[in-house]
Amino acid sequence: MTSFSLADLVAKFGGELIGDGGTTVTGLAPLDRADASQLAFLSNPLYLNQVASSRAGVVILARGDFEKVERPSDRNWIIAANPYAYFARVAQLLAASNAPAVVPGVHASATIDPSAQIAASASIGPNTVIEDGVRIGERVRIQANCFIGRGTVIGDDTLIYANVTLYHGSVIGARNILHAGVVIGADGFGFAPDFSAQGGEWVKIPQVGRAVLEDDVEIGASTSIDRGAMADTVIERGCKIDNQVQIGHNVRVGAYTVIAGCAGIAGSTTIGRYCMIGGAVGIAGHVTIADRVTITAKSGVTKSISKPGIYSGSIAATPHAEWNKNAAIVHNLDKMRDRIKQLEAIVKDLQNTK
Amino acid sequence: MTSFSLADLVAKFGGELIGDGGTTVTGLAPLDRADASQLAFLSNPLYLNQVASSRAGVVILARGDFEKVERPSDRNWIIAANPYAYFARVAQLLAASNAPAVVPGVHASATIDPSAQIAASASIGPNTVIEDGVRIGERVRIQANCFIGRGTVIGDDTLIYANVTLYHGSVIGARNILHAGVVIGADGFGFAPDFSAQGGEWVKIPQVGRAVLEDDVEIGASTSIDRGAMADTVIERGCKIDNQVQIGHNVRVGAYTVIAGCAGIAGSTTIGRYCMIGGAVGIAGHVTIADRVTITAKSGVTKSISKPGIYSGSIAATPHAEWNKNAAIVHNLDKMRDRIKQLEAIVKDLQNTK
Amino acid sequence: MTSFSLADLVAKFGGELIGDGGTTVTGLAPLDRADASQLAFLSNPLYLNQVASSRAGVVILARGDFEKVERPSDRNWIIAANPYAYFARVAQLLAASNAPAVVPGVHASATIDPSAQIAASASIGPNTVIEDGVRIGERVRIQANCFIGRGTVIGDDTLIYANVTLYHGSVIGARNILHAGVVIGADGFGFAPDFSAQGGEWVKIPQVGRAVLEDDVEIGASTSIDRGAMADTVIERGCKIDNQVQIGHNVRVGAYTVIAGCAGIAGSTTIGRYCMIGGAVGIAGHVTIADRVTITAKSGVTKSISKPGIYSGSIAATPHAEWNKNAAIVHNLDKMRDRIKQLEAIVKDLQNTK
Repeated sequence: MTSFSLADLVAKFGGELIGDGGTTVTGLAPLDRADASQLAFLSNPLYLNQVASSRAGVVILARGDFEKVERPSDRNWIIAANPYAYFARVAQLLAASNAPAVVPGVHASATIDPSAQIAASASIGPNTVIEDGVRIGERVRIQANCFIGRGTVIGDDTLIYANVTLYHGSVIGARNILHAGVVIGADGFGFAPDFSAQGGEWVKIPQVGRAVLEDDVEIGASTSIDRGAMADTVIERGCKIDNQVQIGHNVRVGAYTVIAGCAGIAGSTTIGRYCMIGGAVGIAGHVTIADRVTITAKSGVTKSISKPGIYSGSIAATPHAEWNKNAAIVHNLDKMRDRIKQLEAIVKDLQNTK
Repeated sequence: MTSFSLADLVAKFGGELIGDGGTTVTGLAPLDRADASQLAFLSNPLYLNQVASSRAGVVILARGDFEKVERPSDRNWIIAANPYAYFARVAQLLAASNAPAVVPGVHASATIDPSAQIAASASIGPNTVIEDGVRIGERVRIQANCFIGRGTVIGDDTLIYANVTLYHGSVIGARNILHAGVVIGADGFGFAPDFSAQGGEWVKIPQVGRAVLEDDVEIGASTSIDRGAMADTVIERGCKIDNQVQIGHNVRVGAYTVIAGCAGIAGSTTIGRYCMIGGAVGIAGHVTIADRVTITAKSGVTKSISKPGIYSGSIAATPHAEWNKNAAIVHNLDKMRDRIKQLEAIVKDLQNTK
Repeated sequence: MTSFSLADLVAKFGGELIGDGGTTVTGLAPLDRADASQLAFLSNPLYLNQVASSRAGVVILARGDFEKVERPSDRNWIIAANPYAYFARVAQLLAASNAPAVVPGVHASATIDPSAQIAASASIGPNTVIEDGVRIGERVRIQANCFIGRGTVIGDDTLIYANVTLYHGSVIGARNILHAGVVIGADGFGFAPDFSAQGGEWVKIPQVGRAVLEDDVEIGASTSIDRGAMADTVIERGCKIDNQVQIGHNVRVGAYTVIAGCAGIAGSTTIGRYCMIGGAVGIAGHVTIADRVTITAKSGVTKSISKPGIYSGSIAATPHAEWNKNAAIVHNLDKMRDRIKQLEAIVKDLQNTK
């Protein structure tokens, strides 16, 4: 376990240290479970009352909270503008120092086209296949059994886990993380119907655009992002996309937008920047979502959204018998409305003849 | 870039050429962006007014539209019964002529059982594993890192992208396209409950049917189609299935049906021909859907549908505060109905005693 | 085809044989299709009337049903407490005896770290990569093109199909079945927002917990189960999870719970034992579901559920025009409620002044 002194941490990540800079930490834990070798943080005011009794080696917290809490004299504090992000950065440092060293080089079992350009600092795992014209940046790591199609470009410091497929011509930015099972650049779902009374078929529209992921994008396990039909599908910088998400052809997802698991975005839709798309949300094709829109989990979006804000459309499960009764009424709301109309007419009539 | 003369295109795909058969095109573009080397098409009347000013080398359009538009004398036209499908076929021709040549043969790193029969014109990528008794047709292409289980049969001209898994005994027709991450023939979800007060377990029902894909089927990235329990799961000819779709055991999908991304079809359900299943649609097990049924995105189907037509059941997201109010009422519709009933009784009484 | 005498079956699986113990069967079939070499079972009373005319070599049924049916004198019967589970166990026996023998050993093309401990009875397929510190139990079978990350432990008799990825530190119990495309232990979706007017980013929270699958778990094709953030994600013994399911970090799924295809469970949620989660169900993060809860297909769960029972919240598709009318009213239920309130006031007034 690598250890870091509090002085080191503050030198690296900023913040104000109150206490002993020589104290060292080797790990992280929640306030109520941390010991003297661990760092804890306070971000949610719900846990304010755990601070005084925490045995953490140091607590990261905001100035306002620092001023609120009881502070035993033998304790250490780091005051940070954003304790949660500070904690995340320390956690990254610890995780990186505990991870096995990456050995640069290409595994003997990998299949590399001679025209591919691979930085000497990159690491290519067993059985990974790299086609012609691929360019791979500095310190890129690609695990085992991946397929990198011809002409794909991968930026510096990107990490690609096992069993990932990048179709030909994909563009992956710097510092991306692609989890196992990801498929980037498969054909979008485009077919022209050509049927007559005598028969016919769906005629495939060749998908000749690309899938482009800008810098600092993370894509979860088994997520698929289709290539564009003629233009490109683009995931802008800083987006984080969870597992099992499907993104159709020609979609553009704005910078720093996050998309939770099992969501599906149909073709040619544009999502703004800083949006939060909940789990299992479905967004129809050809719509435009403004910046800073939040869609709550399991909602369906069928029309463009032009104003920032939170949007919802899902129904929470309730006991089955109860729901059955209400769901039946949902399917007969038009009749209920007609009964109300009728009542209104009668009542009006009664009022008039009173 | 390969170029094609308009005379060539009409010879190949039919249609009536009005203009110079010697004009050549090398690509495709939308009407308002095409230049003289590109072909454009008109299918949606919304774009009718772009035709006259388009600089495309040729415009494909229907006779009715041809007669409507202003036609500068130096322009070329192909009149086609279905301009969109015509465009798709030309696009395929161009894409094929720009694609790298496929080199037949088995990559040295592939693992092939000696009993497998592989056409000499087929191309098997690196690290692909082909088990005993497999039969692979003419011009089949299988990319890297695929697994083709024992006894699987693959028809002529089928294209299988990287990291695809075909379980033992799968049957894949001619001219199929299976995208990366597809899993065909995994076990269906079948277990017999065997629990008592003392404990117990779910007892697995062996899945001994097959997964059968007929000709001209396309399956999107990371879609899974389970093998049958005793009988087969069947995807009939000409079906197009998008990414991240799940199809359970013993399902039959009728010819030329299309299924959009993230849909799920539970076991033993039969879907008719020429259906259109929207994105994220869920269809319960053991139901039957007639031919030519469209289910709109995110709808759930719990009962059989015996008549062609469009079916829906999803709710569009609206601003959160607004939706919250309405959703709360949905869960109390039975009380609302009771209030209406009561009002009706009182009003009737008032009318009678007026 | 291996054959089994009825005496063998009863010796192995219990139950009471009425008839000729020397009769042999080689397969299984439904009551109405079985011939003398096949075993059939009766579990659903709907099929009671098929028993007398069935030509099956033996029928497995419950004592109560045995007493109800007409019994031709030349017929064989096995009376079992749970005919469906009995059938499943016989089916497993037949499937196992018809499956090709597993050859223990490591395929020459596999990449195995010298520190990995692999039981001599285990079978490791082509191109599978096994990292340092992995421990693999007796009779484990791992198919082709899998990736087993460092320090992962796999219990005895577990079967892992092709193209599976197990991230470092995963724990897989005994007798698990992991289908093709499964991803176990990818990072959970955890990021700290750190944005200001000048820019910013989502800061990744390192995911340092593990994914732990206890004994007798089955995971369907392309399902993903994330590792924990600090603690572990745990799938308890006997759980069966279908295809395309997403399970977030720190989730705990109780023993013998089943989860159908396309469901998604968000992070830090706890699901009880013996639950049944329907297809495409979504469960929000940080909720707790009691034991023996059933959630019907396509429902969304947003709050904890403390009582056993069936819960629902989905809407069945109906003809589009009909649904459109009703859906529009759903979005205006607050206005409908106001109209009812107003009617009630007027009616009250009318009653008072009568």
